Amino acid sequence: MKIEGKAKALAVYIGESDHWHGKPLYAAIVEKAREMGLAGATVTRGIMGFGANSRIHTTAILRLSEDLPVVVQLVDQPERIDLFMKQLDEMVTEGLVVTWNVNVERYVHSEGEPKS
Amino acid sequence: MKIEGKAKALAVYIGESDHWHGKPLYAAIVEKAREMGLAGATVTRGIMGFGANSRIHTTAILRLSEDLPVVVQLVDQPERIDLFMKQLDEMVTEGLVVTWNVNVERYVHSEGEPKS
Amino acid sequence: MKIEGKAKALAVYIGESDHWHGKPLYAAIVEKAREMGLAGATVTRGIMGFGANSRIHTTAILRLSEDLPVVVQLVDQPERIDLFMKQLDEMVTEGLVVTWNVNVERYVHSEGEPKS
Repeated sequence: MKIEGKAKALAVYIGESDHWHGKPLYAAIVEKAREMGLAGATVTRGIMGFGANSRIHTTAILRLSEDLPVVVQLVDQPERIDLFMKQLDEMVTEGLVVTWNVNVERYVHSEGEPKS
Repeated sequence: MKIEGKAKALAVYIGESDHWHGKPLYAAIVEKAREMGLAGATVTRGIMGFGANSRIHTTAILRLSEDLPVVVQLVDQPERIDLFMKQLDEMVTEGLVVTWNVNVERYVHSEGEPKS
Repeated sequence: MKIEGKAKALAVYIGESDHWHGKPLYAAIVEKAREMGLAGATVTRGIMGFGANSRIHTTAILRLSEDLPVVVQLVDQPERIDLFMKQLDEMVTEGLVVTWNVNVERYVHSEGEPKS
């Protein structure tokens, strides 16, 4: 897979408790990204935030019942990100989807054994 | 709230133990953002880092007493981000504030019940 | 250190279990960044993801043995980031390195006592 040079970053801001077809939405997005052969995806959980529904969430109280913010980040060729966003249109019913131009300086893909 | 199209992302790199008026600075920034009607905010805690004060922090040892890095991310219309930065000037006495241009591809706001 | 104005952000997407010279790669990158006098670095651990080796990692199961994604973020003057990337070439044998242009709005460096 060749993605060096001009590329696009995509960040999806959703809630940890958002679901899609019975699984966490962030997991569904990552699995869809892998299925479509994207270069990678990273999900980060925030410790506090608010978003499309305007409530403030925090880890400080009631951790288990809270809906903390999560961010899914992807980087790939612009046309592949654009294609992926068509899938997101169906999946993200509440949230923020943002893109920006990046430069891929290095993308090294292991051809050998899984590393762990 | 309409923010699709050209927008600005803002990232504030501070320490978890930074305070402002008796509360964690990251919480004060999130509350100010909501008060000013910004579209959303997400706070992420790092597991290691150094910043304006050049010390290396890590979760590996002395977790409770450490000052881990936190990042507050916001996205909104450029003029709203610019206005918000005037508030930050007072609040951030040590740290890094960065902006860049993004494109909002999708912003879906729930009109109904809170989701959790 | 003066970095206000046009700057470059760098994100390195690697695995938590990647190592370099006997230490976690993310820690080696942070230490190298401090050694070279960069303005700051922040390491964030993801809760799920896949990358250069295409496997899906998650905190949900087998947390201790998993190789979760980590992201190392740095911001500095473009020429300093470019110089730093030459170091990364040796260190990152598997992963994704991305840069984009940012504007540093504020960089406040404490001259006094460490804050904690």
